[in-house]
Amino acid sequence: MKRIKLCYIGGGSRNWAWVLMQDLAFEQEISGTIELYDLKPEDAQTNAVIGNTLLARHNPGHWTFHANPSLEDALTGSDVVFVSILPGDFAEMAIDVHAPEAYGIYQPVGDTAGAGGLIRALRTIPQFRAIAQAVKTYAPSAWVINYTNPMTICTRTLYKEFPQIKAAGCCHEVFNTQKLLATVLEAAGCAPKGSIRREEIHTRVLGINHFTWIDRASWNHIDIFPYYTQFVARHAETGFHQAEAATTFAAGSASGENADAEQAAEAMRRALFSSAERVKMDLFRRYGLIAAAGDRHLAEFCPHSWYLASPEQVRRWGFALTPVSWRIENRDALIAQARAYREGTKTMTPLSSGEEGIRMVKALMGLESLVSNVNLPNQGQMPDLPRDVVVETNAVFSLDGIAPIVGGALPTDLRHLVMHHVLAQEGIIEAVFEEDYEKAFRVFSQDLAIQTVSLTEARALFDRMCAKTVPAFRYGRSGL
Amino acid sequence: MKRIKLCYIGGGSRNWAWVLMQDLAFEQEISGTIELYDLKPEDAQTNAVIGNTLLARHNPGHWTFHANPSLEDALTGSDVVFVSILPGDFAEMAIDVHAPEAYGIYQPVGDTAGAGGLIRALRTIPQFRAIAQAVKTYAPSAWVINYTNPMTICTRTLYKEFPQIKAAGCCHEVFNTQKLLATVLEAAGCAPKGSIRREEIHTRVLGINHFTWIDRASWNHIDIFPYYTQFVARHAETGFHQAEAATTFAAGSASGENADAEQAAEAMRRALFSSAERVKMDLFRRYGLIAAAGDRHLAEFCPHSWYLASPEQVRRWGFALTPVSWRIENRDALIAQARAYREGTKTMTPLSSGEEGIRMVKALMGLESLVSNVNLPNQGQMPDLPRDVVVETNAVFSLDGIAPIVGGALPTDLRHLVMHHVLAQEGIIEAVFEEDYEKAFRVFSQDLAIQTVSLTEARALFDRMCAKTVPAFRYGRSGL
Amino acid sequence: MKRIKLCYIGGGSRNWAWVLMQDLAFEQEISGTIELYDLKPEDAQTNAVIGNTLLARHNPGHWTFHANPSLEDALTGSDVVFVSILPGDFAEMAIDVHAPEAYGIYQPVGDTAGAGGLIRALRTIPQFRAIAQAVKTYAPSAWVINYTNPMTICTRTLYKEFPQIKAAGCCHEVFNTQKLLATVLEAAGCAPKGSIRREEIHTRVLGINHFTWIDRASWNHIDIFPYYTQFVARHAETGFHQAEAATTFAAGSASGENADAEQAAEAMRRALFSSAERVKMDLFRRYGLIAAAGDRHLAEFCPHSWYLASPEQVRRWGFALTPVSWRIENRDALIAQARAYREGTKTMTPLSSGEEGIRMVKALMGLESLVSNVNLPNQGQMPDLPRDVVVETNAVFSLDGIAPIVGGALPTDLRHLVMHHVLAQEGIIEAVFEEDYEKAFRVFSQDLAIQTVSLTEARALFDRMCAKTVPAFRYGRSGL
Amino acid sequence: MKRIKLCYIGGGSRNWAWVLMQDLAFEQEISGTIELYDLKPEDAQTNAVIGNTLLARHNPGHWTFHANPSLEDALTGSDVVFVSILPGDFAEMAIDVHAPEAYGIYQPVGDTAGAGGLIRALRTIPQFRAIAQAVKTYAPSAWVINYTNPMTICTRTLYKEFPQIKAAGCCHEVFNTQKLLATVLEAAGCAPKGSIRREEIHTRVLGINHFTWIDRASWNHIDIFPYYTQFVARHAETGFHQAEAATTFAAGSASGENADAEQAAEAMRRALFSSAERVKMDLFRRYGLIAAAGDRHLAEFCPHSWYLASPEQVRRWGFALTPVSWRIENRDALIAQARAYREGTKTMTPLSSGEEGIRMVKALMGLESLVSNVNLPNQGQMPDLPRDVVVETNAVFSLDGIAPIVGGALPTDLRHLVMHHVLAQEGIIEAVFEEDYEKAFRVFSQDLAIQTVSLTEARALFDRMCAKTVPAFRYGRSGL
Repeated sequence: MKRIKLCYIGGGSRNWAWVLMQDLAFEQEISGTIELYDLKPEDAQTNAVIGNTLLARHNPGHWTFHANPSLEDALTGSDVVFVSILPGDFAEMAIDVHAPEAYGIYQPVGDTAGAGGLIRALRTIPQFRAIAQAVKTYAPSAWVINYTNPMTICTRTLYKEFPQIKAAGCCHEVFNTQKLLATVLEAAGCAPKGSIRREEIHTRVLGINHFTWIDRASWNHIDIFPYYTQFVARHAETGFHQAEAATTFAAGSASGENADAEQAAEAMRRALFSSAERVKMDLFRRYGLIAAAGDRHLAEFCPHSWYLASPEQVRRWGFALTPVSWRIENRDALIAQARAYREGTKTMTPLSSGEEGIRMVKALMGLESLVSNVNLPNQGQMPDLPRDVVVETNAVFSLDGIAPIVGGALPTDLRHLVMHHVLAQEGIIEAVFEEDYEKAFRVFSQDLAIQTVSLTEARALFDRMCAKTVPAFRYGRSGL
Repeated sequence: MKRIKLCYIGGGSRNWAWVLMQDLAFEQEISGTIELYDLKPEDAQTNAVIGNTLLARHNPGHWTFHANPSLEDALTGSDVVFVSILPGDFAEMAIDVHAPEAYGIYQPVGDTAGAGGLIRALRTIPQFRAIAQAVKTYAPSAWVINYTNPMTICTRTLYKEFPQIKAAGCCHEVFNTQKLLATVLEAAGCAPKGSIRREEIHTRVLGINHFTWIDRASWNHIDIFPYYTQFVARHAETGFHQAEAATTFAAGSASGENADAEQAAEAMRRALFSSAERVKMDLFRRYGLIAAAGDRHLAEFCPHSWYLASPEQVRRWGFALTPVSWRIENRDALIAQARAYREGTKTMTPLSSGEEGIRMVKALMGLESLVSNVNLPNQGQMPDLPRDVVVETNAVFSLDGIAPIVGGALPTDLRHLVMHHVLAQEGIIEAVFEEDYEKAFRVFSQDLAIQTVSLTEARALFDRMCAKTVPAFRYGRSGL
Repeated sequence: MKRIKLCYIGGGSRNWAWVLMQDLAFEQEISGTIELYDLKPEDAQTNAVIGNTLLARHNPGHWTFHANPSLEDALTGSDVVFVSILPGDFAEMAIDVHAPEAYGIYQPVGDTAGAGGLIRALRTIPQFRAIAQAVKTYAPSAWVINYTNPMTICTRTLYKEFPQIKAAGCCHEVFNTQKLLATVLEAAGCAPKGSIRREEIHTRVLGINHFTWIDRASWNHIDIFPYYTQFVARHAETGFHQAEAATTFAAGSASGENADAEQAAEAMRRALFSSAERVKMDLFRRYGLIAAAGDRHLAEFCPHSWYLASPEQVRRWGFALTPVSWRIENRDALIAQARAYREGTKTMTPLSSGEEGIRMVKALMGLESLVSNVNLPNQGQMPDLPRDVVVETNAVFSLDGIAPIVGGALPTDLRHLVMHHVLAQEGIIEAVFEEDYEKAFRVFSQDLAIQTVSLTEARALFDRMCAKTVPAFRYGRSGL
Repeated sequence: MKRIKLCYIGGGSRNWAWVLMQDLAFEQEISGTIELYDLKPEDAQTNAVIGNTLLARHNPGHWTFHANPSLEDALTGSDVVFVSILPGDFAEMAIDVHAPEAYGIYQPVGDTAGAGGLIRALRTIPQFRAIAQAVKTYAPSAWVINYTNPMTICTRTLYKEFPQIKAAGCCHEVFNTQKLLATVLEAAGCAPKGSIRREEIHTRVLGINHFTWIDRASWNHIDIFPYYTQFVARHAETGFHQAEAATTFAAGSASGENADAEQAAEAMRRALFSSAERVKMDLFRRYGLIAAAGDRHLAEFCPHSWYLASPEQVRRWGFALTPVSWRIENRDALIAQARAYREGTKTMTPLSSGEEGIRMVKALMGLESLVSNVNLPNQGQMPDLPRDVVVETNAVFSLDGIAPIVGGALPTDLRHLVMHHVLAQEGIIEAVFEEDYEKAFRVFSQDLAIQTVSLTEARALFDRMCAKTVPAFRYGRSGL
């Protein structure tokens, strides 16, 4: 069996780290050590205990978790580096998401595009510059797989800081769309309910993260587009809800006595992340392509008036504005849960996530070949977008290589929307690298949603949103 | 003396045609015939009489005007073709400009970008396709110089329809900015008032028509930017008005008994076209580049909230919303004036316009070399904009050739705004070539100003604005 | 089972057509009809009989072969079109290959690059223009898979004539290299002899057909490059011969009484197509990349002095100059063999070829997903080569789509050689499309080998080589 | 009058430095100091004396020459930096030019392309890296004007080492072609003999230095191409010699008692640099474009067999193979001449050179506007050549800016030849930057002329040619 060393930056995570350790419980072809590094070493330490406990029970002898307070040690000798961090804290994220509401700007997520995404970028970019420098120094030939948002900006920053880095950004939004397409086929009678696995749905992916598009989709010899067209005709006005189980990750793996409370919490979570796919279907009716991200993300890339003009409009479109307060409460619940796991008062039961992180690692180690969607600098895979910006297309993962697949051209009207965000993201990255606060504001002021308020208001909002974030931006405080 | 044949499509014009004939009154190096072609043959006939009368008096023996009802005859054998037409009529333009006002969308000009520009494009593109076909058939090696708006779209259409065409789009907005820069230097004491000619101001021009930018400007050994920075510091809040004479064209050349009425009309005209350059100065403070078009145009390329949110805001920024009703009244006055010229009750006195049309013709005939700004397909002169789209940069005019000068890169934040319009223009052209009404709407709906209203309202507005225009668009009625 | 219609242009072929029918004998997932079209209808008719006889015995009820003298009928309704023709005849090919020998220019193959390839292109391009027009008219949505050389030029011509065509060029040279790499690993003890299947060798492919390169190769978790480096160190001077069976195609499937004569013929064939891989290994030592074509092809892309300066040098490098006389004799033998098959005096025994034609068809029908190397217009997969020229990289085949995989950049020194041929091929295609005989000569005169003779000699050679071919070139005789 | 500081790297030059000081003797609009820096300080010192003596007599009070042994001092505060150095010495150049003769490779110049140019590049690149670093440190905003060959490689190196440098490469070969075109028109009776000044000939320039092309040429309203076609028809076989005076530079300005000896020397010089323009005319007949460099340069860019196969062939084509021995003798004569100037036994009489160095400086200072051909990184001016490589096109010089003019596309067959050299130059630069001796050899081995010998011979030649040069290349000895 192949033994490898993984480094996990943000290893105290109670989300992706738990997904990872559960997936590793099912893994038989590779083994090794996982160095958990976190700005909060005690969280890494907790996860090391949880992970080792879980694996001892479910996959003994294969993996060792180790909390490592030294980034140098954690990186040195690593084959793969996962990055999954929270840039700043939830108090800052609350400002990202909710401060613009005073100006009528509502954001379902606020971590990718728009006001929230841009301000989050201001404090994330310095951290990713530091990560890139650390990788350059301690693990220059390791593969870096990033899960952090804003995905495009994080990945672009890694390459801009260390052009020889081997990095890719991974996101599961396309998977959810593939699940939806499987459901569409099953509902049309092409196959029994629940029989089509997501991986069997072939999609051609193009665009940028969270505003990704599918212009070809097939299952076996079936072109899915005619079925999807019918599906949209039926559900576009009323909305459609996928089976709930499909979206359950780590949280669903809990077991224990507090099942009722957990069910209530889970119901709340679902409500706050819900979507009726109406934005996705509306965009299909307009552009003829399948938008491959959740409605909460998609809406943030469109003109403000379309889906986000007011909480009422959001409700009509059937998706939720996720409040950061929920994230804070949820974090507190997860902290308690983590303590319980650590102290053994609660037992983690592993569920396979359907995520592809482990498969990617195995493919990069040469153990299989994998085609999946991934965020990479544009080397030609999106010929009508600028070179070097980070785009999302399919790619082939194989031993020590990720080769992007040419995604084709976006229709001009859609490219129109995509380019707005591509250049906003380029602009905000330049602003941080050039330490140009005014340029950052200009980019901010040109955002589709921010445009709806006056420049004076936009400036007031920008200054307020930057108040906590900008010192990092200005003085390069990366926290690492 | 070199004898040439010019063809003037839209030869019944009472604006550019009169400028041309007056400029020809001063021209000593070339001579020939000018075929005036117009959808209204009587207007062409009137202009032929006016032109021949004027030239007989001021430059006898050089030029003959001839109204030609056959486009084939007018084109055949031509060396140069001017195109200066009104796409549709003022009733249609009134819809372009004023229909959006019901939705809070105000447009100072409404012929280039935004709602008005896009709908105007829908009816202009078929006409320019027909013109390109006629040139291809009857005068394939003639130079075509276009003055019609939307400039970018007209010029792009000519090349898309007939890729071997030798066409360029010319616009005097940059000239006015050069005049302003001359004033700036004079006001700073660099030279006596009125001593610097516009042609002496060297500018590097880049961008797209009416959203053109200057990133270098000099006069002799003087870099103008520091002076302009001071000028903006002084005038940005209060505005600045150039000497009035500078913007007077053909209309100013009238003489006769009705001087009082004419002065009143001229005062009205000035008010309705006025600008305090505050938008230009504001953009300079934000981007550090000199915007090289009038404020009325510039505002239409920016987010709606910046300068055009309401008539009050427009007033505060010191420019005017030109009503089409004025254009209609003015046209009626000009018709009367034309009749008077034709009947000899009034006499046209030639003024040299400062326009470069004749100089361009002479340069293309090899009589001089000229560097001027011009709209051409992007062959590399704007390396960061897509190939083939029409851009405005400087170019060298010489015998049978216009060679664009590489304009350099726009800053990313400015490119962000420019690309919005580049792709909207590409999209609207594609929609007409593909006869795709829905695509036209999608492009329309993504416009910066239209975005501010709901999709339902946008659709209602689009359908209303297209009601007169679309038959042409749909069925290819070009009117030629 | 999926039923499809295949059209085979060149269906009288006694090479690829026989491979195809044998592979179909093993195929259980698709079925249908195969329309054989050939300029020699009797050959198509013979193959129809052979194919139906073979399939009746080995895979009854699945496939029907039909010789169709009407290209219109054969194409109409086709899902896939194979093109495998001989442009001109062997008399012309004899001139392509041997006429230059009078000037010291030796060609092992003479059908792709260099003097022979360029002249062959002159008569092939008009035929492929005609094929593209026929596909456009009768089967515009069919997939066209080309096997004809010069591969790059044929495929490029199809797209230049009918830009919406869905065409790809397929070649098995890379497969042979993958077989060699399997042998390398087995010889190094990584796996038992004969245990690694070609398909298991992952290679990243980039370049142009017959001058294709591999810059990454792996098998499972093993990077093949270190093993190949050792292999080359051992064999570069002495040469290496793969197991003979690996290169045996249709001819090997014969059985019957004349086994001795056939064995002798086969031994001759091997000698005339043989290679000791010394060119491939020499290129590896120089450039560090694995050349993925046979030495006979590779040598023709390199400077003339390196491997082809004289028959003696060719012999030293261990490969053969295949005489066209052999092809003529072999054809006569194959004609006899075909007659025997048709008349039943001899029985075709099917062998599975290892070719991917059928798998590609199945992938395009959605029955599987396939990554293979393929020749396609450059949409971005070779970012450092010009757009639109035909390049060879990997691609993903899936339902109705072939998506090229970005191949990365060639090292500058290798790009230097590749670009020579890319631009020669572009030039010769332009010359035919523009019907410019002099331009064709200029391209010819600049070829690496032709450069070695004087311009006067080059012209004499060109005129002689064109004597039979050029009427087709000049007057568009396509033969279709 | 504008006062500036010029720095002259290679200021001990007895060629360009003398041209410069003579041109300055006529200059009335700018004045200042000229810092002469040279690896041989005594030569700089001699030139300072000569220059000050000359200017004191002919243009007193304007310019001061100062020999400066410190590059830091010489650069600091400079407005413009001229670079005109001899990379290595004539002994090395003798190897560049003559060592390949043993293999039948003849070179008329040997400083740009081919064996000589590539080896010269190996020792020049480290020096230009050092110059770029010095400019970056001491005069980052100065304009650098390079006259050193290999021009393309020197200029590219400056930008590769210091991307923000403001550098351009200038060469007078195009001027000579313009003079020839003036002669063509005069000979055709378009104007009296000697009446057309070179500057009046408008040419569109495209390509790379010393392999530059003119695809449009006009004088006033006259297209020169038809006249040139007739001219070529008349002279292509027999050759044409321009009036001798045209090519006389500084050397011609000598006066004194040794007039006879000097005349003899001058006659010798002419013979060794002579050309009958037959290569230029032959290329015109083949490609239809006017080659804009001397035949001695042009021939080195073409396949070896065309013009350079033997000294006899060179003689037939009417140009000379300039031996380095002449350069050595000439240098000795010039050293003696310099001593005589310095000691006052001989007096320099200023002649205006017709070079544009001073005009460029004045244009960059804003005193005039100038269109001239110049070598710059490709920002879009040659859309069909790779970005960033150095190309030669026209450009507009104005205050602190050089804006290249889009040159259009080379015909594919010509681009074929040009790209050979573009990629060879890129490859050799990479080899030096990467310190990869083998890569340098691979590029060398692929050169059009080197290809004609075996790889073994090529290697022997390469090693011999590098023996003196490579230590600099390997260990970064720049001499500065």
